Amino acid sequence: MRPDSTQGQETVADVGEFGLIRRITEGRKQGIPTLLGPGDDAAVVAAVDGRVVASTDVLVEGVHFRFDWSPPDQVGRKAIAVNLADIAAMGAVPTAVLVGLACPSTTPVSVIDELSAGMWHEAGRARIGIIGGDMANSDTMVISVTALGDLEGRMPITRGGAMPGDIVAVAGRLGWSAAGLAVLGRGFRSPVTVVGAHRAPEPPYAAGPQAADCGATAMIDVSDGLLADLGHIGVASNVAIDVRTDLIEVHQRLIDVAQALGADPRHWVLTGGEDHALAATFPDPGAIPEGWRAIGTVTRGSGVTVDGSTYEGAAGWQHWR
Amino acid sequence: MRPDSTQGQETVADVGEFGLIRRITEGRKQGIPTLLGPGDDAAVVAAVDGRVVASTDVLVEGVHFRFDWSPPDQVGRKAIAVNLADIAAMGAVPTAVLVGLACPSTTPVSVIDELSAGMWHEAGRARIGIIGGDMANSDTMVISVTALGDLEGRMPITRGGAMPGDIVAVAGRLGWSAAGLAVLGRGFRSPVTVVGAHRAPEPPYAAGPQAADCGATAMIDVSDGLLADLGHIGVASNVAIDVRTDLIEVHQRLIDVAQALGADPRHWVLTGGEDHALAATFPDPGAIPEGWRAIGTVTRGSGVTVDGSTYEGAAGWQHWR
Repeated sequence: MRPDSTQGQETVADVGEFGLIRRITEGRKQGIPTLLGPGDDAAVVAAVDGRVVASTDVLVEGVHFRFDWSPPDQVGRKAIAVNLADIAAMGAVPTAVLVGLACPSTTPVSVIDELSAGMWHEAGRARIGIIGGDMANSDTMVISVTALGDLEGRMPITRGGAMPGDIVAVAGRLGWSAAGLAVLGRGFRSPVTVVGAHRAPEPPYAAGPQAADCGATAMIDVSDGLLADLGHIGVASNVAIDVRTDLIEVHQRLIDVAQALGADPRHWVLTGGEDHALAATFPDPGAIPEGWRAIGTVTRGSGVTVDGSTYEGAAGWQHWR
Repeated sequence: MRPDSTQGQETVADVGEFGLIRRITEGRKQGIPTLLGPGDDAAVVAAVDGRVVASTDVLVEGVHFRFDWSPPDQVGRKAIAVNLADIAAMGAVPTAVLVGLACPSTTPVSVIDELSAGMWHEAGRARIGIIGGDMANSDTMVISVTALGDLEGRMPITRGGAMPGDIVAVAGRLGWSAAGLAVLGRGFRSPVTVVGAHRAPEPPYAAGPQAADCGATAMIDVSDGLLADLGHIGVASNVAIDVRTDLIEVHQRLIDVAQALGADPRHWVLTGGEDHALAATFPDPGAIPEGWRAIGTVTRGSGVTVDGSTYEGAAGWQHWR
C-alpha cells in the first residue's frame, strides 16, 4: 500500500528516470572517501587499507517494510542502516553505499523524495554518501543496498573465531524492534520509542571497529534475533554458547509495552530481529569495551542455550520458509 | 512468465533461503581478489590500488528480461555482464560482484540453479567470483548486481574528458542485441547469433583498461544505444560528436536479418542498446589500440550528429518514460 493516493500527484512516470536520479543526488554531500560520485558508469571510493568490505541487502515492500506502518523516510533510513550494520560487524568503517531501486511507475515522486531523504540521513550519520545506483520499473518496490567499508588495518572479524572460554557481549538495543512490530501489528502507533525502533533501527556503527580493536574473536550483526545469530557464530566457530538471563537487561519500556499487550518482553530480547545490535565474543571480561554488555559465555560443544537450557522458538527468520 | 510450470517441481519455498544460498555458493571458485567470500556479514576484496570502483544495475523480469525469450542461464550471464561493462568503462579491472535477488516463492529451484550458473559463468569469464548477496521474497523477480573493480594505478576514465579534435572509437558489437530483440519480438528464435547476442551480451572487458592505458580521454559503456551514450559524453565533456556512417561497419548478419524483417540495420547499430560495447575518445588516431574502431570525431559545440546531420529517433531508453 502507498502512503497516499496517487490522484493528482506527480509520479515517477511523470519525472522519468534521469529526473529522479537528479532529485536523489543533486546538492547532496558526499563523504570524504568518495573520490568520484554519481553520474558516470561507476563511482570511485577510497580503499586506503588496500582491502574493501562489501555487503548487499534486499528490502521488499510488504515483506521488509510497509508504507502504512513506516513513512518512506524511515524505510530509507532502515535500508541503509541494515547494510552499514553488516560492515560494522566485520570491524570496518563504512565508506559508501550504492542503491538499486525498483518501483511501480505510479509511485508518487514525494515517496521517492522522502525515501531518498531517509537514506541520505542515515548515510550522513555514518559520514558517507550514496555514490551510485540504478532505478527500474517494477510492480513491487524492491530496494537493494550495497555498502562498502574500510578495515583501517584491522583483521576482519568473522563469525568463525569464537573460542571456548570467551565472553559473549552485545552493543546496541535488543527487542525494541520486535516490540514495535507487535504494537503496529495490534493496530497501535505508539509508544513512539518502540515503534520508531522498528521503523528505523539505529545500529551502533562505531561499536564494531571498537570491538575489533579490543580483540573481539567473532562478531555478527543481530538481524535475525539474538539466539539465531549467536547460533550462526556457534556453527561457524564450532562452539556452544550459553546466554544468561540475569545478565540481560530488559528495558522498563519493553516491560510496560509487553504488559499492555500480554507479551513476554524477554522473548523479544532473545529472539526479536531487526534491531541490528552487534554481538561479539571477547577472550576475557577485561577486554570488553565501554558500551558493550556481557551476556553469556562460549563453551565446548554446539548449540545455543539460555541459562543452560534449550530455548523454545529460537529460530530466526528465513525467506520462503 | 516462468519457463516451466511449477507443478511437481521443487520451488524456492521448499528449499528455503539458507538452502538456496548454499546451492548458489557451495563449491564455486572465487577469484584471486576475493579475500573473504560469502557466508559472513560481509565479504572482503583486495583493493590493491587503494581505490575501489563500484557500480550497481537492477534487472526486472518483464522489463529487462523475459524467461520465455531468454533461458535463466543467459539472464544470469547478462545480469553480471551489464555491470562488469560499467567497471571496464572506467578503465578498471573487475574484482568481485554481489547479487541481490528478489523472487516469488513459487520460483522453481531449477530456475535459480540455472540463473546462478549463468552468473558464475560470466563472472568466471572476468576471473572473479560472486562474493556475497541477499535473497528475498517478492512478487516480481528483481536482480540487483553490484560490481567492484580495481584501477591498477590508472586514472578513472569518466565521460567528461573528451576534447575537440579527439577521435571517437568503439570496441565490441553494436546493433546485435537490437537485431536479436527484433527477431524475438516477431516470434522467431533464430538466427541464434543475434538472438544469443540479445540474451547474453559479451562486453569486451579488457578493452576498457586497454583504452585507459592508451590515453583515452573519455569512455562510456554503450547500454542505451550508441548515439544516446555518445550524447552523455557530449554533455559531460561539453563537446559535440559527429559519427560517420562510412566508418561504421554493419555486419553482413545484421544486414541479412534486417532484410528478412524489413528493418534498417544501420538504425540498430546507431540506436540499439544492451550490446555493452565500449565507446571512448582518443587524442589522436595513432593512440587507438587494437580491437577499437574509429567511428567519428569530437568537435566544439553540443549534440550528437550522424554525417553532420541530426539523426531522428536517437533518444535512448529511460525507465517510466
